[in-house]
Amino acid sequence: MKMAVGVHIIADFYGCPRELLSRVETLKRIFEESARYAGVTLIGARYHQFEPEGATGILLLAESHIAFHTWPEHGLVTLDVYTCGDPKEADNVYEFLIKALKPKRIKFIKLPRGDEIEDIALDFEGVIETEVHMGADSEAG
Amino acid sequence: MKMAVGVHIIADFYGCPRELLSRVETLKRIFEESARYAGVTLIGARYHQFEPEGATGILLLAESHIAFHTWPEHGLVTLDVYTCGDPKEADNVYEFLIKALKPKRIKFIKLPRGDEIEDIALDFEGVIETEVHMGADSEAG
Repeated sequence: MKMAVGVHIIADFYGCPRELLSRVETLKRIFEESARYAGVTLIGARYHQFEPEGATGILLLAESHIAFHTWPEHGLVTLDVYTCGDPKEADNVYEFLIKALKPKRIKFIKLPRGDEIEDIALDFEGVIETEVHMGADSEAG
Repeated sequence: MKMAVGVHIIADFYGCPRELLSRVETLKRIFEESARYAGVTLIGARYHQFEPEGATGILLLAESHIAFHTWPEHGLVTLDVYTCGDPKEADNVYEFLIKALKPKRIKFIKLPRGDEIEDIALDFEGVIETEVHMGADSEAG
């Protein structure tokens, strides 16, 4: 039986519209909405605007964290969605972000975290797998 | 030539002394010291204490982020060290954290981030590789 304390989605989105990645206010709205959509608990956040464009942010969740860093000049946002508890929560955040950020191409890895302790009550068998999709087109692309 | 915007170290530390993982004040000190040691630029941080023990924190860097979540009852801390620019910076943060948190066992993955755009000036060839060490003893163990 495969156990883990959480699941971590690591994704690099390419080909996103530049105007979505430039200003921290836009990204704050999208990422906080993704947390609300998935029903995770936001307990704090820090954001930073780079000039002339580009932003970075981290959302601290009761369930772990979400992080993003953008390179608007490359249409690139790298994002992390790490949740403990119900692994569907990370999937739901991630699916919201695909729709909101409109990538043309995604590099995606999903990892279990803390999966080598044996006395955790959560059962992730059949739920978490390590997957690598390179150069796949997103549904939103 | 392999290009990337940054390098992301994803590590789960097992067998850490429980007293190092219980209180957020201890962890804040260790993680902020790791950033100073590596010479990265801390631009903000958020921390949270769980009761009766356990903590979570995210450090926003000019170079990307560091994140941790602890399960003292399991001797477990999961950590992320993601830096853009000189990839040695992430290594330096990580090496500091091994010494400070004293894991007996480490699960470690190092990933390039944003490595599919072709017009980035940084050359990570021979520097970043995807490595997976499962069940390896740390030098500090």
